[in-house]
Amino acid sequence: MAKATAYRTNTCGELALKDNGKKVTLCGWVQHVKNLGGLIFFYLKDRYGITQVVFDPKNDADAHKAAESLKREDVIQVTGRVRTRPQGQDNVEIITGSIEVICDRITVLNKSETIPIDIEEQTTTTEEMRLKYRYLDLRRNCVQKNIITRHKIVKATRDYFDKQGFLEIETPILAKSTPEGARDYLVPSRVHKGKFYALPQSPQIFKQLLMLSGFDRYVQIARCFRDEDLRADRQPEFTQIDVEMSFVDEENVYEIMEGLMKDVFKAVDVKIKTPFPRITFADAMAKYGSDKPDVRFGMQLKNISEIGEKSSFKIFTETIKNGGSIKCINARGCAKFSRKEVDELEKVAKIYDAKGLAWVKVEGTDTKKKLEGMSAKFFSEELQKQLMEKVSANIGDLLLIVGDHKHHIVDIALGQLRLFLAKKLELIPEDEWSFIWVVDFPMMEYDEDAKRHIAMHHPFTSPKDEDMGMLLTDPSKVRAKAYDLALNGVELGGGSIRIHSREIQENVFKAIGLKDDEIKSKFGFLLDAFKYGAPPHGGIAFGLDRLAAMVCKEENIREVIAFPKTKNAESLMESSPSNVDNEQLDEVGVKLK
Amino acid sequence: MAKATAYRTNTCGELALKDNGKKVTLCGWVQHVKNLGGLIFFYLKDRYGITQVVFDPKNDADAHKAAESLKREDVIQVTGRVRTRPQGQDNVEIITGSIEVICDRITVLNKSETIPIDIEEQTTTTEEMRLKYRYLDLRRNCVQKNIITRHKIVKATRDYFDKQGFLEIETPILAKSTPEGARDYLVPSRVHKGKFYALPQSPQIFKQLLMLSGFDRYVQIARCFRDEDLRADRQPEFTQIDVEMSFVDEENVYEIMEGLMKDVFKAVDVKIKTPFPRITFADAMAKYGSDKPDVRFGMQLKNISEIGEKSSFKIFTETIKNGGSIKCINARGCAKFSRKEVDELEKVAKIYDAKGLAWVKVEGTDTKKKLEGMSAKFFSEELQKQLMEKVSANIGDLLLIVGDHKHHIVDIALGQLRLFLAKKLELIPEDEWSFIWVVDFPMMEYDEDAKRHIAMHHPFTSPKDEDMGMLLTDPSKVRAKAYDLALNGVELGGGSIRIHSREIQENVFKAIGLKDDEIKSKFGFLLDAFKYGAPPHGGIAFGLDRLAAMVCKEENIREVIAFPKTKNAESLMESSPSNVDNEQLDEVGVKLK
Repeated sequence: MAKATAYRTNTCGELALKDNGKKVTLCGWVQHVKNLGGLIFFYLKDRYGITQVVFDPKNDADAHKAAESLKREDVIQVTGRVRTRPQGQDNVEIITGSIEVICDRITVLNKSETIPIDIEEQTTTTEEMRLKYRYLDLRRNCVQKNIITRHKIVKATRDYFDKQGFLEIETPILAKSTPEGARDYLVPSRVHKGKFYALPQSPQIFKQLLMLSGFDRYVQIARCFRDEDLRADRQPEFTQIDVEMSFVDEENVYEIMEGLMKDVFKAVDVKIKTPFPRITFADAMAKYGSDKPDVRFGMQLKNISEIGEKSSFKIFTETIKNGGSIKCINARGCAKFSRKEVDELEKVAKIYDAKGLAWVKVEGTDTKKKLEGMSAKFFSEELQKQLMEKVSANIGDLLLIVGDHKHHIVDIALGQLRLFLAKKLELIPEDEWSFIWVVDFPMMEYDEDAKRHIAMHHPFTSPKDEDMGMLLTDPSKVRAKAYDLALNGVELGGGSIRIHSREIQENVFKAIGLKDDEIKSKFGFLLDAFKYGAPPHGGIAFGLDRLAAMVCKEENIREVIAFPKTKNAESLMESSPSNVDNEQLDEVGVKLK
Repeated sequence: MAKATAYRTNTCGELALKDNGKKVTLCGWVQHVKNLGGLIFFYLKDRYGITQVVFDPKNDADAHKAAESLKREDVIQVTGRVRTRPQGQDNVEIITGSIEVICDRITVLNKSETIPIDIEEQTTTTEEMRLKYRYLDLRRNCVQKNIITRHKIVKATRDYFDKQGFLEIETPILAKSTPEGARDYLVPSRVHKGKFYALPQSPQIFKQLLMLSGFDRYVQIARCFRDEDLRADRQPEFTQIDVEMSFVDEENVYEIMEGLMKDVFKAVDVKIKTPFPRITFADAMAKYGSDKPDVRFGMQLKNISEIGEKSSFKIFTETIKNGGSIKCINARGCAKFSRKEVDELEKVAKIYDAKGLAWVKVEGTDTKKKLEGMSAKFFSEELQKQLMEKVSANIGDLLLIVGDHKHHIVDIALGQLRLFLAKKLELIPEDEWSFIWVVDFPMMEYDEDAKRHIAMHHPFTSPKDEDMGMLLTDPSKVRAKAYDLALNGVELGGGSIRIHSREIQENVFKAIGLKDDEIKSKFGFLLDAFKYGAPPHGGIAFGLDRLAAMVCKEENIREVIAFPKTKNAESLMESSPSNVDNEQLDEVGVKLK
């Protein structure tokens, strides 16, 4: 990988002791200029590293004089000889740390004005200014490292799939609007005025058609688009690792994707264990209060409905009478929490719609533990014993209880409390990578606003064979051949075995309330396609931005995207979206409303 | 690369003599069913090949019965044993040709209705129907082969650049409208009503900013968009191999790209020679009448202005008086052309704006050649001799002459005639790959309609150092550090060393007539960026679709795109562009005009 060019013999990241005496020419950006008793030192920086450069008036007076006016971020070319740094002045942490280049020639390739943002590793610049000057922000070591890591992930992904016989096939960006779920970005057509393309929310239909064409192993690192109101971790355009396979069941998909993760993490020198554990959606909700459980720590939710029912706490007994449930998590060692801290926990539970948070502390002696605090009085000695047993309580523990007539409120509120506590108590091992497959998702969920069922994954997901009979009669009970992969409590992606029967696909469209003409205009060509020998197939899609962010240990996906947009879907760097000429609008047959 | 799945033990392309006796399960599509005296034979086909399958009532009566109702393109699963085909019935041309599978189990995975198009290799179906049923058209062997070859080209490209230390970095698709050249596709913003994103015509500005960020080696297989009236070989969205490098000159770019071509062709088992020859733009036009010369054959254009000037042909003498030129090509052995054939040649010349085509035939004996035909009389014996010498004429040759006061009309008309003749005479060696760099392009050309100079490549291209002084005084004389790579007469791509000085960039914008406020609103952020230590840089972009089409020996890039659009920018398969709900338009703040 020689990177010598017309301008340089070496990069700033490779010269070492072995090069002592060599004549070299380097290019890069000036950093940390120091003028010490006549000698001028600075670092020359490029993507590959930094090299210390020295100008000595005794060595070359003209070059030394030229170096005097150098400022940070000037981009220059220097020529000189590699020499060993004086003892005690070397930096063993970097490969170039034992040498310096004593220079006799300097060419300023371009001067730099004072950089308007702070481009040190720990920047003090606001995110807004960082994004406006993204091309400078991208000079920061940590951001460059992220972009390089992302490249490695993508390269490992492509190598892996190629080895497994997958073909990378490009699908259109100018596609058809089929709004179901998120909003489409629209593109007015100039040639067909009044008509619009849509940017794809995913290549879903195209990849299914490729299966029908016989390309049994497809992959694409695909750009996708959703015009949503952005949460902190969403972008209007994002990239997914998009996969589809024919003649497969769920096991085949799991195996292929576990192999992928193994190779991806190997590319960044992390060894992970496969196969990944699995959990059903129902269990994940019951035990972790989440469909993407973080299993790096315990603190599972325990159902204490039977105990609560027998308590004298009216809220609990009523909850059970109304068909609800009561659950408890054990915050180990947290009996010492102040009232303020416990109030904070209740606030978290309430954010997730819990009506309140009951709590008891475990006190007493090893041989005689007892509950104290707010809710203790409602539990008889026997019930206290049962409760402590259920959650394996020890002295010093804090038991947190939520009851509600809606089961999912209990699960989610305690699940979120569990995560909050894990962070607060630093229970989460930093360097652990805990993958888990979440399987057997419900096929549909009831949308209270739309007053109809909607597909939980998407309407192309196959029901489980044993639940097929309930599709039109009891749709909310139907489980799907759908799966998600969660990593450390984050959903990396998901997929399903697809429907390949025209009849079942039509029934699913009906079950989610699509009308015949809608089905025909949006998905008619897909249903048509199913007539001509569609094979069984399934696939998955992973969010590449999220995966890269996790590998880079970044909270925000913007840190692993070269030119991200703000939460407001703007690019502050080139000011887009922007106004366009009326002439341009005329040509595509639209006007502003 | 094991492709066994829950549904199959093997693919249809791998079983061979060594598998004799093995119990296997295969999946695929039914082809060529033959019912021969009780035995039912057919081919089972998948992406990997075909395997002959046999059902024998003596072997399994039920399975045989089930096989009786099979029809072409049904997708099935069969289980049976591999056995050697009877002698004389084997097909040595395919790996599976020596075996067949005698089956005792069959599962119909999906029936197929009669396929509405002809999916044989040599299809009789119109392109319109092929595109409407593209998912079936993609089952054709030749189309599948193209898609697989494209995958190999892309994989080889990525492997090569990774090895050379390039990073693949994704740039935005939702970008800013900066119309210069082709029309932008626009995307109305919902969040910022009245404003628009534009789909990028290329990642040009983003990749230059990445150089400024210090990523000295960038590559991207990038989707690009141009809303143009489509020629046969254009698509509204297309893919380019997009490259940019810092601290490089032209030589560095040539070397890197020659290495790429070497690896790409190696991936499809073709060995090519590097380095590629080079020709200046001026020479290419003068000798081949093209800026993408096909150098697989001779028939170069010869300037005979001096001879024509002395002739008695008034059109020629006037042409020279008006500052024009006269050129000639030698169509060897074409003196036998009929009048009709010669008229056809004149028609070709006239398409490219020649006012006429003069021609003479070389007759006589070896020791005494002379010119005959239409224009012979205008040339004295001495001039005839000079002319024949100039174009190395032999008996039986046909000399074709064009004169015009516009030099480029002479060049282009004869250049096109040269190509036309080469095809007609089958002069072009089929399996030769002739690359050539075309260099020293003019910086600008004068746009007669716009009445101003426009950038020939794009406005970020650097003028040659020695021509820099003429930028504002004599722009049409300025040559650029620009280069194209042509292959067999087709432009594969082009690029340039870019401007990295704010001052020069501003001067170029001025030279092409951009006003100050336009410069500011469209490119202000780029000029700003140049303030902060922009390194010298350059790059190139290759059309991937075109490259893949050439490797696949396809005339039309649609043959190497999975889901192409028509010349009319439509997708006939999913009917896009399409109408959208008014509600969708309301949301993004536009209405139809």
